[in-house]
Order: sequence, then C-alpha cells, then structure tokens
Amino acid sequence: MSRSLPSSRKIYVAGSRADLRVPAREVLLSGGNAPLRLYDTSGPYTDPDALLDLKRGLPPMRLPWIRERADVEELSGPSSVYRRQREEDPALGGVRFASVRRPLRAKAGRRVTQMHYARRGEITPEMEFVALREGVNAEFVRDEVARGRAIIPSNVNHPESEPMIIGRNFLVKINANIGNSAVASSIEEEVEKMTWSTRWGADTVMDLSTGKNIHETREWILRNSPVPIGTVPIYQALEKVGGQAEELTWEIYRDTLIEQAEQGVDYFTIHAGVLLRYVPLTAKRLTGIVSRGGSIMAKWCLAHHQESFLYTHFREICDITAAYDVAFSLGDGLRPGCQADANDDAQFAELETLGELTSVAWEYDAQVMIEGPGHVPMHLIKENMDRQLRVCHEAPFYTLGPLTTDVAPGYDHITSAIGAAMIGWYGTAMLCYVTPKEHLGLPNRKDVKDGVIAYKIAAHAADLAKGHPRAREWDDALSKARFEFRWEDQFNLSMDPETAREFHDETLPADGAKVAHFCSMCGPKFCSMKITQDVRDYAATHGIPEETAAVVAGLREKAEEFRKGGGEIYVAKSNPA
Amino acid sequence: MSRSLPSSRKIYVAGSRADLRVPAREVLLSGGNAPLRLYDTSGPYTDPDALLDLKRGLPPMRLPWIRERADVEELSGPSSVYRRQREEDPALGGVRFASVRRPLRAKAGRRVTQMHYARRGEITPEMEFVALREGVNAEFVRDEVARGRAIIPSNVNHPESEPMIIGRNFLVKINANIGNSAVASSIEEEVEKMTWSTRWGADTVMDLSTGKNIHETREWILRNSPVPIGTVPIYQALEKVGGQAEELTWEIYRDTLIEQAEQGVDYFTIHAGVLLRYVPLTAKRLTGIVSRGGSIMAKWCLAHHQESFLYTHFREICDITAAYDVAFSLGDGLRPGCQADANDDAQFAELETLGELTSVAWEYDAQVMIEGPGHVPMHLIKENMDRQLRVCHEAPFYTLGPLTTDVAPGYDHITSAIGAAMIGWYGTAMLCYVTPKEHLGLPNRKDVKDGVIAYKIAAHAADLAKGHPRAREWDDALSKARFEFRWEDQFNLSMDPETAREFHDETLPADGAKVAHFCSMCGPKFCSMKITQDVRDYAATHGIPEETAAVVAGLREKAEEFRKGGGEIYVAKSNPA
Repeated sequence: MSRSLPSSRKIYVAGSRADLRVPAREVLLSGGNAPLRLYDTSGPYTDPDALLDLKRGLPPMRLPWIRERADVEELSGPSSVYRRQREEDPALGGVRFASVRRPLRAKAGRRVTQMHYARRGEITPEMEFVALREGVNAEFVRDEVARGRAIIPSNVNHPESEPMIIGRNFLVKINANIGNSAVASSIEEEVEKMTWSTRWGADTVMDLSTGKNIHETREWILRNSPVPIGTVPIYQALEKVGGQAEELTWEIYRDTLIEQAEQGVDYFTIHAGVLLRYVPLTAKRLTGIVSRGGSIMAKWCLAHHQESFLYTHFREICDITAAYDVAFSLGDGLRPGCQADANDDAQFAELETLGELTSVAWEYDAQVMIEGPGHVPMHLIKENMDRQLRVCHEAPFYTLGPLTTDVAPGYDHITSAIGAAMIGWYGTAMLCYVTPKEHLGLPNRKDVKDGVIAYKIAAHAADLAKGHPRAREWDDALSKARFEFRWEDQFNLSMDPETAREFHDETLPADGAKVAHFCSMCGPKFCSMKITQDVRDYAATHGIPEETAAVVAGLREKAEEFRKGGGEIYVAKSNPA
Repeated sequence: MSRSLPSSRKIYVAGSRADLRVPAREVLLSGGNAPLRLYDTSGPYTDPDALLDLKRGLPPMRLPWIRERADVEELSGPSSVYRRQREEDPALGGVRFASVRRPLRAKAGRRVTQMHYARRGEITPEMEFVALREGVNAEFVRDEVARGRAIIPSNVNHPESEPMIIGRNFLVKINANIGNSAVASSIEEEVEKMTWSTRWGADTVMDLSTGKNIHETREWILRNSPVPIGTVPIYQALEKVGGQAEELTWEIYRDTLIEQAEQGVDYFTIHAGVLLRYVPLTAKRLTGIVSRGGSIMAKWCLAHHQESFLYTHFREICDITAAYDVAFSLGDGLRPGCQADANDDAQFAELETLGELTSVAWEYDAQVMIEGPGHVPMHLIKENMDRQLRVCHEAPFYTLGPLTTDVAPGYDHITSAIGAAMIGWYGTAMLCYVTPKEHLGLPNRKDVKDGVIAYKIAAHAADLAKGHPRAREWDDALSKARFEFRWEDQFNLSMDPETAREFHDETLPADGAKVAHFCSMCGPKFCSMKITQDVRDYAATHGIPEETAAVVAGLREKAEEFRKGGGEIYVAKSNPA
C-alpha cells in the first residue's frame, strides 16, 4: 500500500515549526538532471517510512495547531442524535471504525474558520502549509482567504488532512467523487477508491454514498484521508426518511449536518439556491433538473409550496459551519443537464441566489465556494465563469466538467475534460472529475483512475494557460527527456508512469529499446529528434546567419502591420519559382 | 465485415443523377421518435447489401463522373519508373494488389481539379454529393471551393472515394493516421486499421508507412478506401535512397509524386516551407524539429546548403498535382514539439512561406490546405488560427491536436482533444487525430479507435460551438432519450454504442435494467430525472406563476445593467434570512 511511484521519493519541505512538514514528490532523473519536485496529494501512502494501519487511521497532524488556538472545546460525546443511535447499535459492530477521538467544536461565541483567522490578520499553520505547497507567499494566502477568493477546507475534526487551497490564483484543483449506491459497492471499496484517487492526484474527495451504512463508510474514509472530504448531506438525510423527499425536515437535516461536521467533513454541498419560484423555469427544459440534490429540494418545495429549509434556515447553517470550519459548496441544483439547457434562466436565476447566500455566509466568516455546470457547449463556457465571478463576488468556482457534447456516453471524461480545461483557464478553482461511467453506472477502480488522470490533464493545461510560474517546469523536464531519448525519465515524469512504460513496451519490450535513439512509431531512420541533433551541430558551428535575423525582424514588422491594419488579409508579394 | 452499428440502417440520399447516392446512417429509435440521420464515413462496409471483396476493392463510383468531363486520358501504363520496376518484380507477387485499372491523367494543357471546375462556375457531381452530405446549397460548396476556403480531395485515380469537403464553413473533419514502420505491422493490419477507423468516423486516412512494401500497402488501402487517402511522399522517397536524407534528389521525389498520384492518393503533405534560413531558428528550441518530413528536409538543406527541391521545384509540383487533382497539404515541418517551443519564430516564419506557396498553387487551380501544430498551451492556440487565416489567405487549416500539455504520454488523445476542440471551434477545418500511443509506440486497433472517438468528440464539440445548424440534433436526441429512460436508444445514439452498453451492463446487466427509470449511479430513490417528472406535472397543472416571469425579467435587466456598467461586481442588496 505504501508504494511510491517509480523513481520517486517522498520529501518534506520544512516550515516554521517542527510539526509543519509539507509533502512533495521528487522524481529522480538520469544524466545529471536535477530531480523535479511535484505537488503531491497522495499523503503518507507513498511514504515508505509511514506506519499505515487503516483500522487506526492517519496521524492527526493538524491537531496541535487546532488545540493551540484555544478556541475549540472537546465535547463529551457526539451531538448528533442519529450518530449516538448508530454508536449504540450492536448490529453495526462489524462495520464500525473503532475511533475514540471525541468531537471538537468552537467554544461558545467563537468562530474557528480559516477565513476568520485570515480576516483578523493571522497566518495559521494551515496557511503557511499551503503557501509552501504552492510556492507563494503566506501573506498572499491569508489575503486571498480573507477576501473570500480562496478557501482552505479544514474541519477541526479532520486533523488528518494536509491543508490545500482552492482559489483561482493558485494551482487548479480537482475533486474525485466516490461513494456507494443502493445497488453497488462496499466500505472497503470506497476507502480503496479514496486512497487510489489521491494517489493519482485528487485534491479533494467527495463521498456521495447513498446506500446503506453511509455514516460508517464516511468515518472510515475520513480517518484515512489525507485530503479534504466533501459530502452532500441531503443524500443521507433522505435515507433517514426512507427516500421520501417530502418527508424531509429541518430538524433531520440539521442533525445530519452536525453528525457530519463532528465526523470531520470539510465541505458541504448545500442546494440552498433552489427557490420555489425557479422550479417552473425548468419545466420546458429538455432534461429538467439533473442535480440529485436539486431535484430533491425542488420536490420538497413543490410538496410544501414554500421555500426550502436550506434557504429559510441558512443563517443557522452558517452558525454550524462556522463552529467546525466546514466550507460551503453552494450547490447548483438547477444546472443544465444537456447542451440544449445550458445558460438558461433557471441556471442563472439560481446563481444570483448563490451570490446572495455567499454574502450571508461571509457575515459568519464561513468559507464558501460555488458549484457550476454541467453540460455547456464551448462557446457558452466563458459566460458561466464571468457571470459567476460577478454575481458571487469572486468566491471560488467549482465546476462539474462541463461536458461539451452529450453524444459520447462512455467517454464523458473526455467530453468534459475539454470543458474543464477551458473553464479552469478562465478562472475555475476546482474541477469535479467525470469518469467514463458517467450517465451509465458506478465507477470502478479503473474508471476512477481514468477520471482523475483526465482531470489532472485539464487542470495542468489550465495552469499552463494561466501562466502559473511553476507549471511549465514539468512539461519542460519531460520534453527535454523526450528529446534526449531518456526513455526511463520520460516514463517516470509522466502523469501515469506505469501506462507510459507499458505502452512503449507493447511494441519494443527489450531493455535495449530504453536507451535507443528512436521508437516504434518511426523506426531508426525516420526519427526527427535524431535528425535534429545534426541541425544543432550545424548551428553551433555556423551561428545564426545575418539573413535569418533579418527574416525574423521582418516577420515581426509584418505582424505589427497586420494588427494596425485591423487584420486584413496579407497578399503575398513574392513567389518561390 | 459488413456489420452495421446497432439499430442503424444505411440509407442513401438521391441526387440529381442515378449514380449520385449519398450515404448516411439512420439510427432507429423507440417510442415513436423519428430516426436520427447521421453523417456516415464508413462506406459500403456498413451496407448489408454491398458485395465486399478486399481483393477486388470497392466499386469505382466516381469513374463515370470523371470520364464524362472528357479532360483526362487513360495512360497505357504507369508513368513512374519505380512503379514499373515493382510491377515487374516477381518476388512481390504475394503482396501485390491484382489491380488492372490503368492510370488517368489530365490531357495535355488541362487541369482536372475541383477548384478548377469551381472557378469556371461548374457544380460537379462531387460538389453536389458534398452539398447533400452536409445539408447545404451546392452553389455555396462551389463558391467555397473556388475561393480556396474549402477543398474536396478527389484524385481522378481514386474513384472509390465518397466525396467530402474540408473547410471551416462545413462540419469539422478528422483524419486518422495509419501505416507500418520498420519495426512493426503488416499490409493486412493496415487495411484493417483503415476500415476500422472509418467505421468510427475518420473522414480521411493518412498512410504514413515507412517500412517495407510501402507501394503495395498503399495500393491495398486505396482500392478499399471510401475516404480520401493522404500521404507524405518524402517518406517513401527516403526509403528509396536507403534512409540517407542528403541523397534525396528532385528526380527521385518527382517519380514518387507521380507514382502516388497515379495510384490515387488524394492529398500530399509537402514540407516546402522549410527554408534554409529558418533552420537555425530551431537551434535554441527545447525539442528542435519534431516533424519527420521537416527534419528530413532540414538535414537536406544543411547538407547541400541550398533551398530544398520542394521549394525550388514547387511550380513543377503544382503541374503534377493539377494533372491528377491531388490536393496540397502544406506541411508544417517546423511545428513546435513541446509547450516551450509553441508559436516561436521558426514556426511562424514557415507559416508565412506556406501562405506564399498557397498563392502559387492557386495559380494552377491546385487545392490547398495548411498543416498546423502540434504542442500549444491553451492561451496560445487562437493566435495560430488567426494568423493562419491571415497569412494563408483562408486556405483550410489542418492541425495535429494541438496537445495542451506535454506531461501525459499514454493519454495524448486527451491532452490533444482539448486543443483540437478549441482550434476546431476557432476555425480549423480538419483535426489530425492523436492516439494514446503518441510518443510511445505504433497504435494498435484499440488505440486507433480511442484516437478516432476522442477526435470525433472534439470535432462535434467544435461543430456545436460554431453553431452548425444540424449539430445539436444529435445531442438533443440523445439527451431526450436519456431523460425518458430510453436506455436502448441512449446506447444506440452514442458515438460508441458498444462501449456505452457494456459500461451500463457492468453494474446492471439484467434486461429489466434497460427499461428501469434509474441506473446504478444513484439507484431508484435518488434519480433526479425521475423526480423531475413530478416537476413537469406540477408546471403542467399550475403553469408558470407570474412572480416567476417577473424574476426572469428582472434577471435580464440586471444582466443588461452589468454589461452597460462594464462588468463591475454586483453587490447583493438582499439576503434570505
């Protein structure tokens, strides 16, 4: 389980205190090339020195930081009625995590959110951790969190998680969804999906379980997760009322929020923007309401003909989230489910409400991000981003894809990676992955990996396009290895080293091929990179001739002319005959 | 081999003459829904009525059209010295295609290109075919071809091919590369890759063989291909001189062009823009010259210290291409091979020259498209398109990806589908696919399919974003099927019906699940689409209330205000408490 990626070693960057050690992965290279340092989401699972025991969970790294702030109290036991019942149920002994840590909660009148500390000017260890991880200044991190432009999901009851930041002035993050459903999957499988997805680069994981033993599944995931965990509490609340949306009550929902907050969930998707008057706006849609949470709330609103308890009790929810530092992920319950419904009135009406709720949450120093679509054709993607920044006061955007066409079920990791890369470039802070199984079934281990890799590609492409200072280092290191026929380095630097090596070896399995100056695509005589070496030698001997310098200068002039001329067609003045 | 896709039937749209029948695929739907008609690249292989025999080849559908124009002559035998030698070599009996058709060539002083006919105002059967295929006016097709904004690759010696058009005012096309190399693959495999790639949607196929029996492999592919075939003649020319670039001569290359033109190759990649003075511009690149053809020509230029014979003999090449209607695909020999080298002086210097060569080719009524990169970060993609349109006088752009990051070998169908979708939206007419094996090895059957599907997704996403009138029909039909739980229809409408069905059945294999109003992702209680039906019923009963209409009007007003105000941040004026 604690297996590193090939030719990689876990290192820790030391912070200002002995217990602040920021993990990173170093890829060791041949030929005298310096190791490449990469952002590492995999937690202790890739540290050969870590003592791992899923039954005990990861070490609670952040616990001293939390306790030192002296603003939390340890409760004598869980506040949630439901949790107490589960813990007393002898039938659940076999699936229960044997945790003994008691829940923490803000002392009366205190707020324990990273935004709260940031606003009062304090750089927390969490902020310092994030700054070292991203290679930026800690004061910049504090300022972005204080302004609400970034969040650091950090429930005081999830001290196992390694701090990370979600905001558009940082590296683009990705989320992987896991979770059982009524028809498939077990606790073991879900914990395994969590460690598996973070191994490949998931920055956060959402547990979207809707089947049985949701509470216990989540406990196992949280205690073993090095990344923040998100949930959609309405799913579990619905289980508690036998799946009848109209039976949901504020009391049941409130107990669920507290149950999950005291377990350590780092962010909650809350569909508080589904207002009664918006529901009919979806009636003429091609695919209606496609968000599970959105449809549940819409059904409740219709059944009761009143605004949802998520909306009417929103300030009480803020009190709860601020007491544990659970971040809001304000859900887009009315997001479009197909190209035809993209950017419609229902979607944008809800977005306005999410903007209003953001302002309310910020009154409580609660951290907020905003969820976005969904299914959107390329030419309508940018409007989503621009509008979100405007009406949600620059709170981080967290989108699902978007899918840029509906016609390729089985390949929706690709249809959506296109949209995800684009919206990430435009400013989305976190991309929720889509697996090849989307619309068809529950993802298995391979699907999870395929989804994570597709989204790491989208996120990294966005980082490159945004000009993140450290993003190109990785591309340059790999391209240099490629050009120099350092095949082993090329594999090891790949986002998925195992697949890269396997694909190469399919046609040229011999060890000798790993040092060959060609590959099976072109064979030895046709290798352009090999031929290019001759060009190098030529230029080294002859220098760049004067007429070349003149050509380049001329090109620049011409380009300038075009721009000034408003981009008319350039008519060629010479021909090569 | 003549197997249709599931629940699909081959239909033919009748044109103005009995032998003009445009193929299409109709997907039959349940529940009284009209069949959906889709563009079909698969040729007779999906027509159960077709008599197929790879040894005889496809019927020469276009032959009467070509002959009727009375501007070609049938040669007594092949003009190429090399071909005559191959045909006389008894050792090749086992691999030779038993073709007896004699080559056609323009009569002396005639040009037989579609551009030539278009410019003199003639709507050819090829143009009519294309117009019916794309659902546009034939006069529009003629005008686009006459202006050079679109090409219809149509070698008079490849009458088996079904006419298709490449231009930015038509559906975005994709190309699949196949071909053996010195280390792998056989003739049978390459013919199979051609039929396989067109089955999944390849609009053209390039045979990039560099191994042995290149001539014979190409003959088998051409005689059995329903789509235009492109090649890079310099590859074969290089084989003829034992792989020594500096040994290449105009005479050998010229014989190769004629050899291939008389076989029926529909477009030639020609790297005539690699000028001697540009070569040193690549010396400081991270990955130098990565185009095989580009590096071969650069090496030749350096060895001889003179401009390449592709450039100095360009007018003679135009004479040849105009005599058979082989389209130019002016190669970007200096395209960037990594993010670091994108949009540099070498790349754009060559592009200028390609623009000049376009003007020359058009003097001969030769059809032209321009090849483009390669590896480009997202924020630099649009400049490629804008500049190409400007300096190449709107000749169609044909790009390889571009890959938007270098760090994911094994997944370059995804890194590049992102760039391909974007540049397709911006105006690229044809996207050259990249398979998962790119940079690692020769693609197998699965890789070819994965590459084609990723690129069909990119092309279709581009068509949607460009607002092609018929593109959204497909998405809407599939989304409607999804919303109505018509699972069988959803599978059958998918770009890859087999994979969609297989993924669904992995978790819910029972036949009953194909009519279930839920799937394994959410289970029956959490299906948003199911819940949405209740919303529909509500709206149908109650109508859309007045306050909702007011909300929508208000939103529109606000949006208008933002735009007028230059997009300042909107400050929420109310809160929901």
